[in-house]
Amino acid sequence: MDRRGFIKNAGVGALAAGTILAGAPAVHAAKTIRWKMVTTWPKNFPGLGTGANNLAKYITEMSGGRLTVKVYGAGELVPAFESFDAVSRGTAQMGHGAAYYWKGKSEATQFFAAVPFGLNADEMAGWINHGGGQQLWDELYAQFGLKAFAAGNTGVQMGGWFNKEINTISDYKGLKMRMPGLGGEVIKRAGATPVSLPGGEIFTSLQSGAIDATEWVGPYNDLAFGFYKAAKYYYWPGWHEPGTVLECFVNKKAYEGLPADLRAIVDHAMKAAYVDMLSEFTTKNNAALMQLVDKHGVKLKRFSDDVLKKMGQLSQEVVEEVAAKDKMSGKVYKSFNAYRKQSLNWNRIGEAGYSLARSLTFK
Amino acid sequence: MDRRGFIKNAGVGALAAGTILAGAPAVHAAKTIRWKMVTTWPKNFPGLGTGANNLAKYITEMSGGRLTVKVYGAGELVPAFESFDAVSRGTAQMGHGAAYYWKGKSEATQFFAAVPFGLNADEMAGWINHGGGQQLWDELYAQFGLKAFAAGNTGVQMGGWFNKEINTISDYKGLKMRMPGLGGEVIKRAGATPVSLPGGEIFTSLQSGAIDATEWVGPYNDLAFGFYKAAKYYYWPGWHEPGTVLECFVNKKAYEGLPADLRAIVDHAMKAAYVDMLSEFTTKNNAALMQLVDKHGVKLKRFSDDVLKKMGQLSQEVVEEVAAKDKMSGKVYKSFNAYRKQSLNWNRIGEAGYSLARSLTFK
Repeated sequence: MDRRGFIKNAGVGALAAGTILAGAPAVHAAKTIRWKMVTTWPKNFPGLGTGANNLAKYITEMSGGRLTVKVYGAGELVPAFESFDAVSRGTAQMGHGAAYYWKGKSEATQFFAAVPFGLNADEMAGWINHGGGQQLWDELYAQFGLKAFAAGNTGVQMGGWFNKEINTISDYKGLKMRMPGLGGEVIKRAGATPVSLPGGEIFTSLQSGAIDATEWVGPYNDLAFGFYKAAKYYYWPGWHEPGTVLECFVNKKAYEGLPADLRAIVDHAMKAAYVDMLSEFTTKNNAALMQLVDKHGVKLKRFSDDVLKKMGQLSQEVVEEVAAKDKMSGKVYKSFNAYRKQSLNWNRIGEAGYSLARSLTFK
Repeated sequence: MDRRGFIKNAGVGALAAGTILAGAPAVHAAKTIRWKMVTTWPKNFPGLGTGANNLAKYITEMSGGRLTVKVYGAGELVPAFESFDAVSRGTAQMGHGAAYYWKGKSEATQFFAAVPFGLNADEMAGWINHGGGQQLWDELYAQFGLKAFAAGNTGVQMGGWFNKEINTISDYKGLKMRMPGLGGEVIKRAGATPVSLPGGEIFTSLQSGAIDATEWVGPYNDLAFGFYKAAKYYYWPGWHEPGTVLECFVNKKAYEGLPADLRAIVDHAMKAAYVDMLSEFTTKNNAALMQLVDKHGVKLKRFSDDVLKKMGQLSQEVVEEVAAKDKMSGKVYKSFNAYRKQSLNWNRIGEAGYSLARSLTFK
């Protein structure tokens, strides 16, 4: 039997109903749209890969199967870092990653993922959803035939795992540390050698002494990698990634070709995935940190104020250089920096002010 | 013309298609489900009422009009504080409020809105979405024929507007302050007289000296109320409401009677509304705080460590008494308190640790 033909005929009645009854809701024809989502994560990678899975599930469920999304792990359909191009040219309709992976396309992408000493998780959502960030992100990605979405956040990350104590900024001299992106550029200016390594090679490199230190994400992901077996100290805070946004980029033509209800489903599924991922990281980071300290005897250390101040200054240099590279980067930085400037007071007396107040009584 | 009859007939073909073609997505018949959402807010009240509007809009859009939600301001269909009962008995299908309004129904409700020195906004989402909170909330609300959802968050609130300086805990003696809920009970134990006043009467009471102080929400909402014209000092942090969850309660039978795709739409619309409201408050609190200070010359003051410590101790007393009132309150408190205990370390080195680090360089 010709399924398509049958469904098409069922749809004709619906169309007639819609025409005759102005104002009546449309009857949805049972046309199934099948989308592919390529990701930059290993399949089912905790928090990030599972976040992509959730997003696909939400869209498929809410559409009653009219728009089904199938998730591909890194390398299954295209290699991780070809996801952007694959969605841009329509090989897949969606991609899941982090915007700083695409700095080779445009330096401005980095502002939509993580900026050293930049916005925290709630501020990133605030800037994107209500502070003009989304419009700029759309303008940037439209150049590549894409529509951008924030689809998750890891929350603030940790400073990293070290086999050398960091007491002053001079302890960074000669330090070999796995740290990609803008953070890597910052520690380079402090005298370190930033090393780029894929996730799978970090542990052995740390254990063999090929690197002295590495950052990864936070307690939840770091515990799973077993870094506590290969490093002496776990430093905080993660100044280099204060609230990393995970993104979903969608082929613009495919997105715009959807009927309005499916477009709305895609839009709101992103926000649902955002809060769900941040909730998962918040919860599991809490639990994993306790396990690292209580069960595995991890030594937590805080970077000194002097180190943090110097890193703050170097970060500002690095970020301003990025902003000067091209017109779009300058435009995005201007908006980002204005939001940060305005956030500092409210964050100090609001969220941070409360945390300090709570810690006076509750230890 | 009989619209229902016509649509019903169109639906028959759809049903047949579903029967014959096992595995084919269902053709959605154009049956429109019309839901009413009663709210505890004045119509279009900034942040809270508009958050309810957004939620209704998301559901209506995503369902392509198959499930339309009409929002009623407080008093339009039922008075604000009859919303819970109205949805419970099915007069309306949805209600929008804050769970602590229903402490007369069960003391345990308060844990799902705000607890003095309790969880912040991201921790509340973490506890509800990934820490067992949702299951407990559902168990509690099922007793009233309701399904509970987190549908927004104001973020941390402010300590309030005062016409008297608060330097030590003894300054609370005889202080008349508008502060509802658990916070009110806490300041009562410090010697204050907590006063309950509806929103519309606060400003004149503060101006006339009938009350010495009031809390409301945060800079965004407080600016709109013009409290800066009637009070000398604006205190922080808001220890009494560290991340207030706005809720949506749904008539359980109505919810369970929805087809699976519409249920999923309701579920995920709640999360989208959650992140959207928190983003709005984050952004607008930032801007409003600057305006209050720069344009209106508001004097910001921080409660002293001694005051905060004492309030922390009194809060713990009050909350433990709530937990002892009945079995369900005890069960919810146990889960809430375990989550808080675990959150303290991660919050200190994570979000708060980062805020402090950032403030060393960025002022």
